Amino acid sequence: MDTADNAANGPGAGGAEEPDYAHWTEIPTRWADNDAYGHMNNTVHYAFMDTAINTWLVEEGGLDYRGGDVIGMCVESQCSYTAEVAFPEVLAVGLSVARLGTSSVQYRVGLYRRDRRTEVARGRFVHVFVDRTNRRPVPVEGPLRVALEKLQTGAA
Amino acid sequence: MDTADNAANGPGAGGAEEPDYAHWTEIPTRWADNDAYGHMNNTVHYAFMDTAINTWLVEEGGLDYRGGDVIGMCVESQCSYTAEVAFPEVLAVGLSVARLGTSSVQYRVGLYRRDRRTEVARGRFVHVFVDRTNRRPVPVEGPLRVALEKLQTGAA
Amino acid sequence: MDTADNAANGPGAGGAEEPDYAHWTEIPTRWADNDAYGHMNNTVHYAFMDTAINTWLVEEGGLDYRGGDVIGMCVESQCSYTAEVAFPEVLAVGLSVARLGTSSVQYRVGLYRRDRRTEVARGRFVHVFVDRTNRRPVPVEGPLRVALEKLQTGAA
Amino acid sequence: MDTADNAANGPGAGGAEEPDYAHWTEIPTRWADNDAYGHMNNTVHYAFMDTAINTWLVEEGGLDYRGGDVIGMCVESQCSYTAEVAFPEVLAVGLSVARLGTSSVQYRVGLYRRDRRTEVARGRFVHVFVDRTNRRPVPVEGPLRVALEKLQTGAA
Repeated sequence: MDTADNAANGPGAGGAEEPDYAHWTEIPTRWADNDAYGHMNNTVHYAFMDTAINTWLVEEGGLDYRGGDVIGMCVESQCSYTAEVAFPEVLAVGLSVARLGTSSVQYRVGLYRRDRRTEVARGRFVHVFVDRTNRRPVPVEGPLRVALEKLQTGAA
Repeated sequence: MDTADNAANGPGAGGAEEPDYAHWTEIPTRWADNDAYGHMNNTVHYAFMDTAINTWLVEEGGLDYRGGDVIGMCVESQCSYTAEVAFPEVLAVGLSVARLGTSSVQYRVGLYRRDRRTEVARGRFVHVFVDRTNRRPVPVEGPLRVALEKLQTGAA
Repeated sequence: MDTADNAANGPGAGGAEEPDYAHWTEIPTRWADNDAYGHMNNTVHYAFMDTAINTWLVEEGGLDYRGGDVIGMCVESQCSYTAEVAFPEVLAVGLSVARLGTSSVQYRVGLYRRDRRTEVARGRFVHVFVDRTNRRPVPVEGPLRVALEKLQTGAA
Repeated sequence: MDTADNAANGPGAGGAEEPDYAHWTEIPTRWADNDAYGHMNNTVHYAFMDTAINTWLVEEGGLDYRGGDVIGMCVESQCSYTAEVAFPEVLAVGLSVARLGTSSVQYRVGLYRRDRRTEVARGRFVHVFVDRTNRRPVPVEGPLRVALEKLQTGAA
């Protein structure tokens, strides 16, 4: 992959190097992910995003989504689709934190073929952390913040 | 609809009379309900069932699924598929209570074309009502029981 | 709704007038739309968007998604979430075309409480129309173009 | 696990031995699988079933669901739920063929914790293989039949 291509297409667009996401996970497609066009429906990409994100928050950040005081509310999401995906493919999902504020975090998420080289979609996802009861923003602190800071590594 | 057909096919199998469900509601299909075969995926029929049931429990039985002490846990479900459904169809969903016990209830649900004459699927769905915290069965009482008894009307 | 509010908040942000979408449809929530936080999961908003869009394409534009030569591929989508939604709410979905190109169309979609006054989310959705077999862009013509042009009315 | 328990509870009900399914696969939960009760919604178990089944049919039986002449239509499904599942659990899914007819096949599917010892649900799923165009039953032959016969091994 030459540098010009790299600059034009962003990380991992079919090149020889693994794109620079801080964390990778694999998520398999399901039969019902395919829609009438025989490919993964556009809504499912968002399920891949929030699954990768929340798995990280639970396993690394100690998020207790059933009883904890703080929960993450999605206030914005976006996805650009670059190639079709179809069951029974397994996707590699790259995850980084692009911006970490007091109460909010913006993730960037890359969906790739299992080889982590061919991008099929890339997205943006913004969480605001709020108090479970009154839904007002709270500062992200403790293990949750540590977990999110780890995702800044390599986020360029 | 002659009696022989009625006996063989059960309520509402393409006959001229409306099948004897206690309550009807309409639910539209969504684009992503279709799977790769261009018809509504078999899992979606269950979403129609628990949507019809829980709408009734909330609106008629006063179920407070977010804060109430009692919640309904599905312990068994079943569906027989008799005809294909495809987006953007709207289905008529018939709902009755087949058996009401101390803590449990068995519903029968019929999915029909919008005319309420042509059956596309029929199912069975069993709820056990439990304490939200310890998940142990509790007696169904008060407005919830009243709402379920209403669904016995016409359940034959 | 005064002009200042309108400029600041965009169409329909809690004002007294119906926001200026070209077409409205109602879509009910389903039980399983709620996630662990007791509100409609962020991915479901996209299902509302592509359901509203594809219903229009099928019913007004003559889209034959199972056998036709031309299909609509989603190449980008985006959503901003402004209020929580929960089962069993019914949402009003406003739909307009923001930009109509030779082969592509950008929709803007507003999700509102049933009163069409209180916005809960707004999104962007981009279709490229392609040949079903070779997946290459084709010009949007005939009844499909007519249907899309109708959505430009009032799109401001 | 003593024999009496085994007879009473069926294969794999919390015992010390791996239950006798012919094939195992692992499927992770997704964030949105959880419903308002903080556990995997009852409809999702069916998505696990038809994902395990169709993955086998595609990878072992050569099913070409996009272009092939023969497709599998679900005519009946059923599930008994024995324990709650919650994101981000990974489930082990056991798959066997209980009955293989000329045109139809009945699978039995077991959903287990990742250890393959603790059952969380078990289900039944019936496919009728039909001609893609006229939707009439056709005999299951060739590689597809071979793949299904492999699932009879150990099906007891």
